[in-house]
Amino acid sequence: MIILNTGGTFNKIYDPIKGLLIVPKSNRAVEEIIKNINQNIAYKGLIYKDSLEFTDEDREKLVATIEKLDEKSIVVVHGTDTMDKSAAYVAQRVKDKCIIFTGSMIPYSIDKAEASSNLTLAIAKGLYAYEEGVFIAMHGIVAKHNRVYKDRQRGVFCLK
Amino acid sequence: MIILNTGGTFNKIYDPIKGLLIVPKSNRAVEEIIKNINQNIAYKGLIYKDSLEFTDEDREKLVATIEKLDEKSIVVVHGTDTMDKSAAYVAQRVKDKCIIFTGSMIPYSIDKAEASSNLTLAIAKGLYAYEEGVFIAMHGIVAKHNRVYKDRQRGVFCLK
Amino acid sequence: MIILNTGGTFNKIYDPIKGLLIVPKSNRAVEEIIKNINQNIAYKGLIYKDSLEFTDEDREKLVATIEKLDEKSIVVVHGTDTMDKSAAYVAQRVKDKCIIFTGSMIPYSIDKAEASSNLTLAIAKGLYAYEEGVFIAMHGIVAKHNRVYKDRQRGVFCLK
Amino acid sequence: MIILNTGGTFNKIYDPIKGLLIVPKSNRAVEEIIKNINQNIAYKGLIYKDSLEFTDEDREKLVATIEKLDEKSIVVVHGTDTMDKSAAYVAQRVKDKCIIFTGSMIPYSIDKAEASSNLTLAIAKGLYAYEEGVFIAMHGIVAKHNRVYKDRQRGVFCLK
Repeated sequence: MIILNTGGTFNKIYDPIKGLLIVPKSNRAVEEIIKNINQNIAYKGLIYKDSLEFTDEDREKLVATIEKLDEKSIVVVHGTDTMDKSAAYVAQRVKDKCIIFTGSMIPYSIDKAEASSNLTLAIAKGLYAYEEGVFIAMHGIVAKHNRVYKDRQRGVFCLK
Repeated sequence: MIILNTGGTFNKIYDPIKGLLIVPKSNRAVEEIIKNINQNIAYKGLIYKDSLEFTDEDREKLVATIEKLDEKSIVVVHGTDTMDKSAAYVAQRVKDKCIIFTGSMIPYSIDKAEASSNLTLAIAKGLYAYEEGVFIAMHGIVAKHNRVYKDRQRGVFCLK
Repeated sequence: MIILNTGGTFNKIYDPIKGLLIVPKSNRAVEEIIKNINQNIAYKGLIYKDSLEFTDEDREKLVATIEKLDEKSIVVVHGTDTMDKSAAYVAQRVKDKCIIFTGSMIPYSIDKAEASSNLTLAIAKGLYAYEEGVFIAMHGIVAKHNRVYKDRQRGVFCLK
Repeated sequence: MIILNTGGTFNKIYDPIKGLLIVPKSNRAVEEIIKNINQNIAYKGLIYKDSLEFTDEDREKLVATIEKLDEKSIVVVHGTDTMDKSAAYVAQRVKDKCIIFTGSMIPYSIDKAEASSNLTLAIAKGLYAYEEGVFIAMHGIVAKHNRVYKDRQRGVFCLK
């Protein structure tokens, strides 16, 4: 299994000089969470963007990265706003792997609970319920990417 | 699904008057973690002990509680030191449910990451990979209770 | 002594729906910090703004509030970007009290250390070193407002 | 100014293997708090004990360390249970310095607020209100050591 960390709220940290939350070019949140997982899990960072800024070039880069991987189970950490769009993009191009998108509404650096829960859920899908396809694992929901949506008013992922 | 919260390090909070970590008669850690799980999950507290103090009477009480439940998927939050012993005790008595023991090495009140990860892993087993039996879900490992042990020197749960 | 809480980074909390840090209409950060102070300290919230949005009308409101208070020792929690400007404004109008401005670079909700340290420093000035005038208490520095500046590159308050 | 860090609850961290809070041979809590203080403050660790285990030999070592220091302002981080006893011991032996004892009821590693507030209060006394003598700075109270006591039922330091 490998985790591809593309950024999003999951990774954001507070920059006191700018007075803003930023997506750092860092995998620290992923690294800290997988310390609690006694499995052999690799990770790799790329793109490092808020998902509102994701372009189709970024999605192309994500597909190209996935296609080169030997791993069949792949967790993608991604911003929540366009997670469904990137998942659909990947689903059209990659057919022979189990790819699970996850992320969080609250940065790991602000509250470790949600990000830890979501990433563990995604990892559990890849480790224990492998099947080919592209999935979203968020807030206790794990399903095919096109059956999950973000309820933007409540800030919760739900089944369609 | 229902969570039975029996105490353990998972729940401990610091008591500044005593200068010690205590197991409170409270389900707050469970409540906070399942706020991040968009599933219908009940919970109930009982026993509320450090697992080194668990007796066979406590285990009997746990079995009696499980037998009365309508739910077939049951997560048991338990201290890590005798989790295997309580799981074996329950396994001899309850055959027709999916019972998943979990807990954590670090209290949720001190570091939310591990407890959130472990509880989510246990919930995912019950929700997405139901099978009759008694399991332990800790540190990314999910397996039959008698195949998992606590490596006491490293503080990590492992597969036998 | 009374604390007037006008907002600023000190108070910011993460809003998961908006994906932004916001200034809540709440005094929770002040309330939590003064639980650790065994002194009779009142507090009152007003304005509740990021200090980049502070107008002279807000400053006028702050002066009017201060003038009506019986307390002679007043701590003002304020955003860091225009703290010096508001302090200068108040200093021209109020002469017979000890007014100490403070705030923080990092929200209390993200890291409790800096906000707790700065507010305690401001309180200590009012309680133990009362003198008429308007002061800034930040980062271990306590001095007349016009002798303190924010080094915007390093994010640290310094003596001129 | 120099901080002498002798241990106590202030410094405690959770040891997941032992399942206990321990006093580490480390000054990390002091180091993190003084990052928020823009003053030239040295620190040195010694003894590193829970104050219930402090002996007169430890107090003798503390006095000997203080007597060798060039600094006149000295903050001593100490456990809360025998802080008054150690302060009285030092007061009988050292007359020509400003020595301020502080600590906390809750470990910095569990909640950063109280430890940050107490240490800042002690530092403010040394920096801004220097006077010869031995003081206790806790919970917003700063006074001669023999005028301050720990209310053990409420867990709060108070003036006699």
